[in-house]
Amino acid sequence: MSESELGEVGLIGGTGPLGRGLAARLAAAGLSVRLGSRDPQRADEIATTIQSQVGRGRGTVAGVSNPDAAGSGQLALLTVPYDAGAALLSQLGAQLQGRVLISTAAPMEFHRGVPQPITPEAGSAALEVSQRCPGARVVGAFHTVSASTLAALDSPLDEDVIITADDVEAKELVTRLVRTIAGLRPIDGGGLVNAHFSEALTPFLIRLNRLHHTETGIRITGLVTD
Amino acid sequence: MSESELGEVGLIGGTGPLGRGLAARLAAAGLSVRLGSRDPQRADEIATTIQSQVGRGRGTVAGVSNPDAAGSGQLALLTVPYDAGAALLSQLGAQLQGRVLISTAAPMEFHRGVPQPITPEAGSAALEVSQRCPGARVVGAFHTVSASTLAALDSPLDEDVIITADDVEAKELVTRLVRTIAGLRPIDGGGLVNAHFSEALTPFLIRLNRLHHTETGIRITGLVTD
Repeated sequence: MSESELGEVGLIGGTGPLGRGLAARLAAAGLSVRLGSRDPQRADEIATTIQSQVGRGRGTVAGVSNPDAAGSGQLALLTVPYDAGAALLSQLGAQLQGRVLISTAAPMEFHRGVPQPITPEAGSAALEVSQRCPGARVVGAFHTVSASTLAALDSPLDEDVIITADDVEAKELVTRLVRTIAGLRPIDGGGLVNAHFSEALTPFLIRLNRLHHTETGIRITGLVTD
Repeated sequence: MSESELGEVGLIGGTGPLGRGLAARLAAAGLSVRLGSRDPQRADEIATTIQSQVGRGRGTVAGVSNPDAAGSGQLALLTVPYDAGAALLSQLGAQLQGRVLISTAAPMEFHRGVPQPITPEAGSAALEVSQRCPGARVVGAFHTVSASTLAALDSPLDEDVIITADDVEAKELVTRLVRTIAGLRPIDGGGLVNAHFSEALTPFLIRLNRLHHTETGIRITGLVTD
């Protein structure tokens, strides 16, 4: 499957740090990105900036409304922090029917600036998304990838993306999506019930970032992969 | 600091899988390992087996009682599963006064064979050890390293050990200990309050091991280290 076969990729709430970083990398990989926002004009301005960073002759980034991002192509990514996800999703049920929806959020709260993982009643943000959008094919991914490293297109990536899902086809599609981005290795993390492990890594990596003054990510060692 | 300057290393409850694996690697690195057990004769038999795998002319492994393991040298490692730790430590308070004590346990329970992290009231196994042994200088480490990979001396290691501690000198000593084992990279994981992140990785890695039919570990990417 080539990049073009993945079709359009929609970023719901795509104007935040993670959405901008992913938009840059996915467009650089040749994909058509639909950057969604409550304010399509703002999305358009940010999309134009990202497009100029990516350059011409590669993929494209277009600013759209969140419903348009949710309804674009086979794949949509929810790229807002956990707290903002529920309100957004409540308006997008129709668009997300049958679509592969990637949950990227890591539920956490900050105590005196230190991030602490929290566990939603559903068990994880990804499982909660799955309950809120019963028609969507929910996949957990991208929890451990730094938004600012993604946005810095000159910085080579060299890390893993843990992918959790119960829908095998959806997982395979997201695996292919991850592979389009140079330097990211997709790792099968098992069922959606495992998403909370990947989500809980985010606050730990943020703590390590501060300690080591860098942007960390993770790799699973001992695997035989390509 | 050379291996000899680390002195003797005691493994409390060292006859289980993690203790045996660490004993083999530490002895192969030239260290003097005191393998502790409630049954010193059993410890002696296992120590003899490990010594024959390691070979002569390197470090040594000797079977001892748990109090002897706790009181050997500067460094002791508690290498029993979480459930067995409290009873063991309750008898070793005197021996552990002022010693660096490495907590390796990952608190978890199994539901239909699937490991699930649990959170001790203290916040983590390492913090609980710290409360139980107020005189010991507690460090969390080795949670993500597979016991069976350690035991297989012919298998090269290539992964990180996350080290958490509040005692800077103790952390430095454990950092040096990790460096003696070829293929392990010590990572400063911050204070002991962060130990639960490392501990919670163990059940996830066990799940990944089953899924991928291998022994996994982790690496933190993006760090500038030696």
